[in-house]
Amino acid sequence: MSNALKDYLTFCQNRVERALEARLPSETQIPAKLHEAMRYCVLDGGKRMRPMLTYCTGKALGIAPEDLDGAACAVEFIHVYSLIHDDLPAMDDDDLRRGKPTCHIAYDEATAILTGDALQALAFKVLADDPTIQADAESRLKMITMLAKASGSQGMVGGQAIDLESVGTMLTLPQLENMHIHKTGALIRASVNMATLTKPDIDPKQAEGLDHYAKCIGLSFQVKDDILDEESDTATLGKTQGKDKDNDKPTYPALLGLAGAKQKAQELHEQAIESLSGFGSEADLLRDLSLYIIQRDH
Amino acid sequence: MSNALKDYLTFCQNRVERALEARLPSETQIPAKLHEAMRYCVLDGGKRMRPMLTYCTGKALGIAPEDLDGAACAVEFIHVYSLIHDDLPAMDDDDLRRGKPTCHIAYDEATAILTGDALQALAFKVLADDPTIQADAESRLKMITMLAKASGSQGMVGGQAIDLESVGTMLTLPQLENMHIHKTGALIRASVNMATLTKPDIDPKQAEGLDHYAKCIGLSFQVKDDILDEESDTATLGKTQGKDKDNDKPTYPALLGLAGAKQKAQELHEQAIESLSGFGSEADLLRDLSLYIIQRDH
Repeated sequence: MSNALKDYLTFCQNRVERALEARLPSETQIPAKLHEAMRYCVLDGGKRMRPMLTYCTGKALGIAPEDLDGAACAVEFIHVYSLIHDDLPAMDDDDLRRGKPTCHIAYDEATAILTGDALQALAFKVLADDPTIQADAESRLKMITMLAKASGSQGMVGGQAIDLESVGTMLTLPQLENMHIHKTGALIRASVNMATLTKPDIDPKQAEGLDHYAKCIGLSFQVKDDILDEESDTATLGKTQGKDKDNDKPTYPALLGLAGAKQKAQELHEQAIESLSGFGSEADLLRDLSLYIIQRDH
Repeated sequence: MSNALKDYLTFCQNRVERALEARLPSETQIPAKLHEAMRYCVLDGGKRMRPMLTYCTGKALGIAPEDLDGAACAVEFIHVYSLIHDDLPAMDDDDLRRGKPTCHIAYDEATAILTGDALQALAFKVLADDPTIQADAESRLKMITMLAKASGSQGMVGGQAIDLESVGTMLTLPQLENMHIHKTGALIRASVNMATLTKPDIDPKQAEGLDHYAKCIGLSFQVKDDILDEESDTATLGKTQGKDKDNDKPTYPALLGLAGAKQKAQELHEQAIESLSGFGSEADLLRDLSLYIIQRDH
């Protein structure tokens, strides 16, 4: 990772952590257990990739980080709610996330369902009334429409439904791509477009380029995840199959082979860089981020 | 029920059924199963009490029903999502709703979780971009803020959390009231205030009266539900205790006795009528509705 990106990520991670904390109800407020669970799940020091994208896009567009806190938090609240529900026994049934017990383990299933539900409502409340958002009322409505579409049945939740249906079936490459475009891609695009919508007078070509950049890195992130899963299992566990493959989940290496998947990630990175051709050095962080996504080792 | 109210309710029920149908994604759209489940749960011929309240309040304010379809649907989408999640095994574990298998029985738990999640997102999308909503952008944002608060951790979801925590404990009357004010009252108030916010030049005293009306009927509805539960079980099942009492759930009859609960319902109805003193006959449907709520036999 470039030093410039590293410094900016650290700066933004600290920034968004405080911003999230400030927007969550206090655990002294009734119902205390629910508010405690919301804070437990949100304030866990995650990577904050989506807020980072909002801030880095803002940097490319000359928007100050303090004008993007609300939008960055809204996207992260949606992301965290989706993880909480995804971890439930009826879904992926995960006990641990980032080394900590998942919400339904630390609390109980009912609390986990409600915690996710409350975080979704909070995301839309923040977009509607957060004073840090500099966009006018019309642009706020566009942000809300975009986030609702990106997270709803034709976005993230739709992708989770496609994922559930695809377990045990062999997807084609277009089907796998379609699943990822919905499940994770839609919210990643929304993270970038939150910043775009904060600048109503943006050059439409720049907006289009940023949106295409977001599509590319959303997919390359997923391809790289599949590659890392395949490689780490083979290397550290001495197994020849990754966790997802074991679970009959379709992956890029399964469809393209490991070398093919790596080439795919590289091509997506190159497309992402190409999408930023309308920008000068102000978009270097986005360029560095795209490279980091396909080069990271975890 | 007055004939005027009966006719208007039938008119509105047909109207909102069509409006909901038009706003749900088609089941031919991918992911088909998720969209089918959303339609299965929403289009089930429910009472539509919340949309009715929006339309009846609109009638009192001279707002045409066609200008309230979007707002009425948004509130109903939130209500239906909350029922789907409430029925889950980890929550109330109900297999039937209105005589039909609940979502997780008709489909599966994962689909039920996702269906609720998708309906919540759809509610906010409708408020942000539905062309039938006549309010300006600022008023739409107020509607979104209000619905997000009413349905979030300090509204409906908060009430569900308080309810979960209170099973098996003896609540005081203020605690019971606080639970209902959150669990069902907040969304009922939002249903009324959706219409209020559609008329930005409303007399603030009228707006205040309508909001207070909504608080009163939200509670009287709950008191009457408890009374019906107590009476029907005693009469038809020969039991001396109602279902909620069996489950150790706090109820108004348990705290006030049956006669005390009936008096409470009557007092709330009188307060609701008093709140409408700033209106003439244009609010008669709201008056009839308040009376119906405490006189209904199911």
